[in-house]
Amino acid sequence: MSTSSATGAGMAWQNNQNRLQFLFEYTTVSYVGTHNKKIGLLYRIFQLTIMGYLIGWVFLKNKGYQVKDDTIESSVVTKVKGVARVNTIDSNLWGPEDYVFPNQGENFLSILTNFIETKEQTLGNCSENPDVANNDCSKNEECTAGEAVRAGNGIKTGVCLIPNGTCEIYGWCPTERQREPDPANIVREAENFTLYIRNFIRFSRFNFSASNVPKENRKLLFKRCTYDETLHPYCPIFRLGDIVNKTGHKFEELALKGVSIGVLIEWLCDLDKDTECRPHYSFVCLDKVSFDFRFARYSTDAAGKRQRTFYKAFGIHLDIMVCGVARRFNIIPTIVNIASALTLMAAGSYFCDIMLLYTMKKRSVYTESKLDRVTTNDKEIPVQIMPEGLKRKFSL
Amino acid sequence: MSTSSATGAGMAWQNNQNRLQFLFEYTTVSYVGTHNKKIGLLYRIFQLTIMGYLIGWVFLKNKGYQVKDDTIESSVVTKVKGVARVNTIDSNLWGPEDYVFPNQGENFLSILTNFIETKEQTLGNCSENPDVANNDCSKNEECTAGEAVRAGNGIKTGVCLIPNGTCEIYGWCPTERQREPDPANIVREAENFTLYIRNFIRFSRFNFSASNVPKENRKLLFKRCTYDETLHPYCPIFRLGDIVNKTGHKFEELALKGVSIGVLIEWLCDLDKDTECRPHYSFVCLDKVSFDFRFARYSTDAAGKRQRTFYKAFGIHLDIMVCGVARRFNIIPTIVNIASALTLMAAGSYFCDIMLLYTMKKRSVYTESKLDRVTTNDKEIPVQIMPEGLKRKFSL
Amino acid sequence: MSTSSATGAGMAWQNNQNRLQFLFEYTTVSYVGTHNKKIGLLYRIFQLTIMGYLIGWVFLKNKGYQVKDDTIESSVVTKVKGVARVNTIDSNLWGPEDYVFPNQGENFLSILTNFIETKEQTLGNCSENPDVANNDCSKNEECTAGEAVRAGNGIKTGVCLIPNGTCEIYGWCPTERQREPDPANIVREAENFTLYIRNFIRFSRFNFSASNVPKENRKLLFKRCTYDETLHPYCPIFRLGDIVNKTGHKFEELALKGVSIGVLIEWLCDLDKDTECRPHYSFVCLDKVSFDFRFARYSTDAAGKRQRTFYKAFGIHLDIMVCGVARRFNIIPTIVNIASALTLMAAGSYFCDIMLLYTMKKRSVYTESKLDRVTTNDKEIPVQIMPEGLKRKFSL
Repeated sequence: MSTSSATGAGMAWQNNQNRLQFLFEYTTVSYVGTHNKKIGLLYRIFQLTIMGYLIGWVFLKNKGYQVKDDTIESSVVTKVKGVARVNTIDSNLWGPEDYVFPNQGENFLSILTNFIETKEQTLGNCSENPDVANNDCSKNEECTAGEAVRAGNGIKTGVCLIPNGTCEIYGWCPTERQREPDPANIVREAENFTLYIRNFIRFSRFNFSASNVPKENRKLLFKRCTYDETLHPYCPIFRLGDIVNKTGHKFEELALKGVSIGVLIEWLCDLDKDTECRPHYSFVCLDKVSFDFRFARYSTDAAGKRQRTFYKAFGIHLDIMVCGVARRFNIIPTIVNIASALTLMAAGSYFCDIMLLYTMKKRSVYTESKLDRVTTNDKEIPVQIMPEGLKRKFSL
Repeated sequence: MSTSSATGAGMAWQNNQNRLQFLFEYTTVSYVGTHNKKIGLLYRIFQLTIMGYLIGWVFLKNKGYQVKDDTIESSVVTKVKGVARVNTIDSNLWGPEDYVFPNQGENFLSILTNFIETKEQTLGNCSENPDVANNDCSKNEECTAGEAVRAGNGIKTGVCLIPNGTCEIYGWCPTERQREPDPANIVREAENFTLYIRNFIRFSRFNFSASNVPKENRKLLFKRCTYDETLHPYCPIFRLGDIVNKTGHKFEELALKGVSIGVLIEWLCDLDKDTECRPHYSFVCLDKVSFDFRFARYSTDAAGKRQRTFYKAFGIHLDIMVCGVARRFNIIPTIVNIASALTLMAAGSYFCDIMLLYTMKKRSVYTESKLDRVTTNDKEIPVQIMPEGLKRKFSL
Repeated sequence: MSTSSATGAGMAWQNNQNRLQFLFEYTTVSYVGTHNKKIGLLYRIFQLTIMGYLIGWVFLKNKGYQVKDDTIESSVVTKVKGVARVNTIDSNLWGPEDYVFPNQGENFLSILTNFIETKEQTLGNCSENPDVANNDCSKNEECTAGEAVRAGNGIKTGVCLIPNGTCEIYGWCPTERQREPDPANIVREAENFTLYIRNFIRFSRFNFSASNVPKENRKLLFKRCTYDETLHPYCPIFRLGDIVNKTGHKFEELALKGVSIGVLIEWLCDLDKDTECRPHYSFVCLDKVSFDFRFARYSTDAAGKRQRTFYKAFGIHLDIMVCGVARRFNIIPTIVNIASALTLMAAGSYFCDIMLLYTMKKRSVYTESKLDRVTTNDKEIPVQIMPEGLKRKFSL
């Protein structure tokens, strides 16, 4: 927008100024305003879309103005209560000290609901459980003495028990025989056992901690309430039958062969809003297959010989899984998200420019208005340095 | 800035160029420079603020040039040492094999510090512990035979024990009577027990792992050091009394009824700086209420009748909670943060433009300089296409 | 680009317009086009670099268009199978119920591979294990009666055993003497024990869950497959010897003193691609030092005196550590990353402008074309308000 002769004037103008003047020089882009309805409307719609995205989706829906800490630290203490009549060789009554494994109140526990009892096992030779694989034989040579049966109950003696067609083993005999648990054995009272869960959580990023047991009337709670999704959503005492039902199954069905259930405690803490935040409980069946484990009770018989009672125990294995997110306002994501939206608007403007310059009927007018071409091809002679745009202005 | 007649010239100019010329065409926005001190200063201050925010807050304080991995994988092994004189029916000396539950060195453990012992329980009928709720009665009809007492110790026999006003139960009798633990029973030596913690961590995102036990002089450490916040901050051997004191409580106070204590191991690893990173230990009381659990020791008396000793054990439950963040330089967050700051500057420039155009005394001058209005309303006749801005220029 | 007299015209022009016209006014920046090959090429290269970074690094390599959930919730159930001949006082055969601690199938477990057995301990006075530190003495006064030996096995009786030079203790006597485990005692069959791992995971953010045990032919799997990195990478049954070998050690070497091994299950789930995702197993030695713990088996001898067999058990401690990340497309990071790249391009353009205006031979031409200086210094008299740029235009 100037000829070369003006250049010297510009330089002089600069030299006239105080050296610190640059601090107050404000350089900004120059604008061109048009009244093209189509482009104008398009750009307004685009601006509204971006604003809607920023406010609605990023800020309101996704809380893009907050940072989150999703590495929750959690400590869980549990206690089970209830008694049940059972029919084992040792006892006809089980308390928590008998049916909860482990019984130190950890964040995982198994509550026995069924069992297969193999009584009076002693060490000796006998036939292997026919269910065990890779133990078939037709003659002694197929049973390598001293080799353990894979996933079996003993060590091969080198003898093939012809009538069974299995290798003889040395182990606790007789081996466990029963394959399937007996529905008659189910510990039915387990449905009414209660589980008390104490959960302490902490978000180290925000130095915020909370507990699922409200401090007020804690004493009263202990004896009275039972968790109920609608009536007592914050009561930390759960009926085992309720837990099972909430996974969508019937108690008898799962108690028979055992199951692994996840008790999910979810903490969603918006630290900008709440002074305290509350847990949300949910229950999920972790697997459709059974949950069982084996243990033995050793004793010495009258003759001084060691014997044992062997249990395959089926139970409801509870895994208390705590997850959660705490969120608090933070300037960095806020600025990143706003800046991204502003950039998008600028990009939209760039797109509208392209529309304006290349697709509109009067595009040549816009092109001339918006775009000032400067040609300074080094091969050109000095007088040609005068910019095209300027030339055209005076070519009227 | 052109009339319609110039359009053809522009097109011709374009056609004269090599088709590949566009590669070397550099289109950039045009600027307007002003010497308005207020706006200039305002914009400089704004620029400095953004720079300060970017460098000071985003980069130095929040390490915005790094990505972090806060999903630490951790494995903890513990070992407790120490002996204590106790007074139980079975023994008068406890070692770790007796007072630590579980004793396989897991990342959670309970150290017994007090207990209520109920001796010589046998299965039979007796009155329920009066503390148990929902067990009051005034006549036999109120006690349904075969029903378990909720959170109780046995199954109702159907008899109401009038003098007590409670239903008779079948269970291990006599039931636990003592309500409160006895301060005289506290395992005082527990204060001097030592806890050795071995912690291995891994940040899978960076394939980085570390251990809290320094490799050098590991042997020497074992027998000598004790953790001290200032003297030995990296010693992995902790005195139980010190752990309790650091939570802000006295040992006797918490040992009486037990407590759940979190041992927090925090790893903050700046992988750009350190070749190795060190843990920081802290101790927090997870809850104000007691920690207890029950277990039984079964035996057979001289007459062959099964009996048991029942323990309500109070203890210091330690939960070793490991958290941590590893950070390493990454180009993506660096660029996102720089770009956001640049966008903010551009937005600040836009804001200054608005100030310039609408609030300054000489605003009309700026408006004319910055803004070139182009009107191409389709209803206008071609000669009116000459832009308003250009018209005004020649209306001098 | 205007004189002060034009201002009124501009205002009038505004007033002539419909009030809603502003909706259709589209204001955009004005451009200057140049044909400087150096700058043009520089800018094209810069644009290509940014595009390459955005598409290659941010989107393809780092999946910058997805959000991730790296707070995996996991539940693990394990079961060990196998028998081994051992030589203890109680038994000559061990099953999982004997060598796995704890045996309820948790996500951590210790498999005994060696042990030091101290038989027939009874409570009484004896000399302390000389390995225990801080127990040396030369006279009785140095042994405070009633004080527990730090990290020791008993309580000082106040007597100094001169020949040993150690304080006498009251405890389970004789104390454990053997320092180092005996290679002859290694449970060699442990190499062939099998570990079955059932892992259920959940990403709560995406409400996605998966299991490591494929539902199809689950029954068949149980008896047949063994995990192999190449042949059966998804088989959930592991041979203990294979696990140890994959950590880069020999079984005998680690079985002697025990070790802590991490079984890492990694889940990388791209929820945009897969309907299901599969685990990846790896094995890492968590520490070079030994893993051991102690336990005791109590009994009553013929004379009714309580005695115990004390075990220092060395074992392979397995910690099943589950980690994982799920990713799914999300508009917010996509936009943030695109916007950052666009901003960088704009910043690159700004940098090219500076090159153009200050380093090119013909810079003065560019300066005049791009930059229109407006001076409205308040001290200037009104006629000087005419912008310098405009002045220069008419100074031709």
